Amino acid sequence: MFLKALELHLEAEKPIVILNKSDAEELDVRPLDRVEIIFKNKKLVGTVNIAKKFVKPGYIGLYETISKQMRLKTGDRVKVSRTEPPTSIEFIKKKLNGSQLTGKEINQIIKDVVSKKLSDVELTTFVVSLHNHGMTMDEVASLSEAMAFTGDILDLGKEEIYDKHSIGGCPGDKTSMILVPTVAAAGLTIPKTSSRSITSPAGTADKMECLSPVDLSVEEIKKVVKKTNGCLVWGGAVNLAPADDMFIEIEHPLSIDPLLLPSVMSKKKAVGCKYLVIDIPTGKNAKIKSVQEAEKLASKFIELGKRLDIKVSCLSTYGEQPIGHNIGPALEAREALETLMNKKNPKDLLDKVCDLVGNLFRFRGIKEPEKKAFQIIKSGKAEKKFREIIEAQGGNRKVKPEDIPVGDKKVKIHSARGGFVLWINNSDIIKLARTAGAPKDKGAGIVIHKKIGDKVKKGDILFEIYAEKAYKLNRALKLAEEMDVYGIGKKYEMMLAKIPKEKNNSYFVLER
Amino acid sequence: MFLKALELHLEAEKPIVILNKSDAEELDVRPLDRVEIIFKNKKLVGTVNIAKKFVKPGYIGLYETISKQMRLKTGDRVKVSRTEPPTSIEFIKKKLNGSQLTGKEINQIIKDVVSKKLSDVELTTFVVSLHNHGMTMDEVASLSEAMAFTGDILDLGKEEIYDKHSIGGCPGDKTSMILVPTVAAAGLTIPKTSSRSITSPAGTADKMECLSPVDLSVEEIKKVVKKTNGCLVWGGAVNLAPADDMFIEIEHPLSIDPLLLPSVMSKKKAVGCKYLVIDIPTGKNAKIKSVQEAEKLASKFIELGKRLDIKVSCLSTYGEQPIGHNIGPALEAREALETLMNKKNPKDLLDKVCDLVGNLFRFRGIKEPEKKAFQIIKSGKAEKKFREIIEAQGGNRKVKPEDIPVGDKKVKIHSARGGFVLWINNSDIIKLARTAGAPKDKGAGIVIHKKIGDKVKKGDILFEIYAEKAYKLNRALKLAEEMDVYGIGKKYEMMLAKIPKEKNNSYFVLER
Repeated sequence: MFLKALELHLEAEKPIVILNKSDAEELDVRPLDRVEIIFKNKKLVGTVNIAKKFVKPGYIGLYETISKQMRLKTGDRVKVSRTEPPTSIEFIKKKLNGSQLTGKEINQIIKDVVSKKLSDVELTTFVVSLHNHGMTMDEVASLSEAMAFTGDILDLGKEEIYDKHSIGGCPGDKTSMILVPTVAAAGLTIPKTSSRSITSPAGTADKMECLSPVDLSVEEIKKVVKKTNGCLVWGGAVNLAPADDMFIEIEHPLSIDPLLLPSVMSKKKAVGCKYLVIDIPTGKNAKIKSVQEAEKLASKFIELGKRLDIKVSCLSTYGEQPIGHNIGPALEAREALETLMNKKNPKDLLDKVCDLVGNLFRFRGIKEPEKKAFQIIKSGKAEKKFREIIEAQGGNRKVKPEDIPVGDKKVKIHSARGGFVLWINNSDIIKLARTAGAPKDKGAGIVIHKKIGDKVKKGDILFEIYAEKAYKLNRALKLAEEMDVYGIGKKYEMMLAKIPKEKNNSYFVLER
Repeated sequence: MFLKALELHLEAEKPIVILNKSDAEELDVRPLDRVEIIFKNKKLVGTVNIAKKFVKPGYIGLYETISKQMRLKTGDRVKVSRTEPPTSIEFIKKKLNGSQLTGKEINQIIKDVVSKKLSDVELTTFVVSLHNHGMTMDEVASLSEAMAFTGDILDLGKEEIYDKHSIGGCPGDKTSMILVPTVAAAGLTIPKTSSRSITSPAGTADKMECLSPVDLSVEEIKKVVKKTNGCLVWGGAVNLAPADDMFIEIEHPLSIDPLLLPSVMSKKKAVGCKYLVIDIPTGKNAKIKSVQEAEKLASKFIELGKRLDIKVSCLSTYGEQPIGHNIGPALEAREALETLMNKKNPKDLLDKVCDLVGNLFRFRGIKEPEKKAFQIIKSGKAEKKFREIIEAQGGNRKVKPEDIPVGDKKVKIHSARGGFVLWINNSDIIKLARTAGAPKDKGAGIVIHKKIGDKVKKGDILFEIYAEKAYKLNRALKLAEEMDVYGIGKKYEMMLAKIPKEKNNSYFVLER
């Protein structure tokens, strides 16, 4: 049938059309069915929404993506007919019913995901089905490749590309900012792309942005890496494995993460990584609760690496408390810089960096690799390399830690009793930092004064909250007063939690 | 924070707000998170969508449901803050991860579904989780009650309410139009609500609408039933178990039907049904393929009935071909009327009606109940009652079959060979009738001339296609030529299908 176009000026990226109920019935389409629109030899398939009043009979409401692509103006006469939905929907239904998908089927799904042809109902069904039925290693490998090759590819023209990934969940983890310059200073190529925070107080990209631009293009990244062997950029700016972002929109509200493996590995594949070390923070408030669980996950990463031609080694690391002392974009950028300058010496951070770097060096056959890593940092070579990278990315190579602005609204939290720090609740620390404004307010965050095992006297400062805005500081302070962030007690005190909980402090971590 | 309202005049019934990306970051919300909006002592929770340009920083775009409810005009200053999502989302996650839900949890979910508080992602997750993990009978019972009691209730002030339901899938099934007046003529109360077509060529409501209005209010239904003992109305007009319609929006594109049991039983509960007969059409093209499968489903309905205080009996009926001869709203209305007037004698239809009525009569202790049903029809009492119901609902009691307009565009399909009708493809018949215009064009449909087992000579008419519009007739004819609607052959011919199929004629049936 012929209908008149109606521009809706709605910027949703999906090709959605809105039909009046009576026209939809005439076309025999229901919500989420597809129609083909023809205008001046241009064809496009849209997903049907139905309105009773908003779009009048005889009209077809068009979201911006369609009206722009087809150069349609309100009043243009278009031919509209019912058409079959994308074939990928059949494959999604197949997975929904528990069947294994072929590489070809997975490819088609990811193609349609990336070109935004699938509705929320269809996307959710795919993600939930993966969560429910799991995937075989063949499926994970196909998915990783499909996600990699539907996005940008960073081709550095080199064979030996090194990389590091953390599955996240540990606040204050500024490991990458120390690790990348250390690896690059040794002459290894490490084009590190990172994400911005999703649920954490600061992603590596958010932290690095306090020192230099991070939204570089593929060509700019190539130049930086050619010059310095490394980079610390935001993956989101270069459209690496873009399907992942669309999956995150579904996973986040559901607190599930069935695409962890393909998500990580597709991004590594897209930068041409050959040697990869994966950090698996392990602890009762982390994503991975025990070493056994970490081993299981690690063996999957290693197996997947074999199929994708990436050598993988994994480290389960202590994840019971924040890494170093600072949490929040600017505070962490400061601590990273101070550590590289040997002005500060956060032992847990340095130990973790050296273990991870060591495992990358081992791939290269470097002897005493952890020691070598430590030397590169202590000799100042890593700092020098870091400043090179900052400059190459467009930042100020002479930046001093105190140049990085942090929030000027502060409050100290004191201990109500004496004893030892028995535990720190990472989830609470994350919530506090975010309530104080991180990551949106770069200067907001937490500075930890006492760590697990430290002796504490009544009235000692446990931690400080930083904020840029007074009302956010107040909110964070109020929250801190309601929480049990620190467990302080005698070393024999056994109770960790009361069940059922009197309040719900659980917090889902989704980081890539 | 404070934002300026921006009316979007979008009629979506869900309370959606659109924030600019920067304001969303400031509020620390992501898509599908919730915000609380406060304006002049009115409070409302909205689901967050995020725009980069469409809504400018400092504004909050409001769908019509919110702006109307809060009487907000563009420019009004509203207080917006992040708030917790509805608690039902936690319960949906619980089901997603395979746990059993309590009655209280199910209640909360259905309450939030009906008040449109859940996004498509959340709704889909619930439906897909039910599909994947199934439900215990306790869950199904809770779900049925929750779905019933979140909608209208038809209270007739009587104890003995009878009802009938078909799980559908068989084209031409006008059983209810004969059954209801037969049961009512015997003095039993049967307030039958029916659906409109979803995937079939005609729902009972679509057919009955050719004879009288069907969109009656609860009060109007009460009057009709008081006067005549029965009715044949559209359930959609009275908001019975409204959650079901929202689930259908999700189930339909996914071709799944995990809510079949609660969907049926919630509607029966809402009309106060105490005695129920369920028709389970069984056949290789029907929803239920074998008697064994029908028995399984039946035992679930019976068990569920016990928990809901409804006595249930189920019949597995022959579902290999259309019932009677006519398919399509007006054509079926004609056939029903002709059958009640004893002008026509479609034996399969009459046999099925008498079996179903018989099982309702048996609940009442009526002797030789199938025979009694047949007598009521043959004596003209059922016709008289049908005309009373038509009149009570606002139609013309003197209507003649030929008064019901059917499509004046027709085409006959002839057999290309002689032999016997070995099979009829119900899915193809459904597709043809819909392509010809049914149910939107009430006069469109199919008239079957030959049924299974009939002898056919080359050139005999197999069926006719009726349409109101020439282009739809042509489309249907073209489709008919591509299909194998009829299997005509010698009685010993064995092949039913070639695998893999050369074309895909599968068709998902979702009827309530």
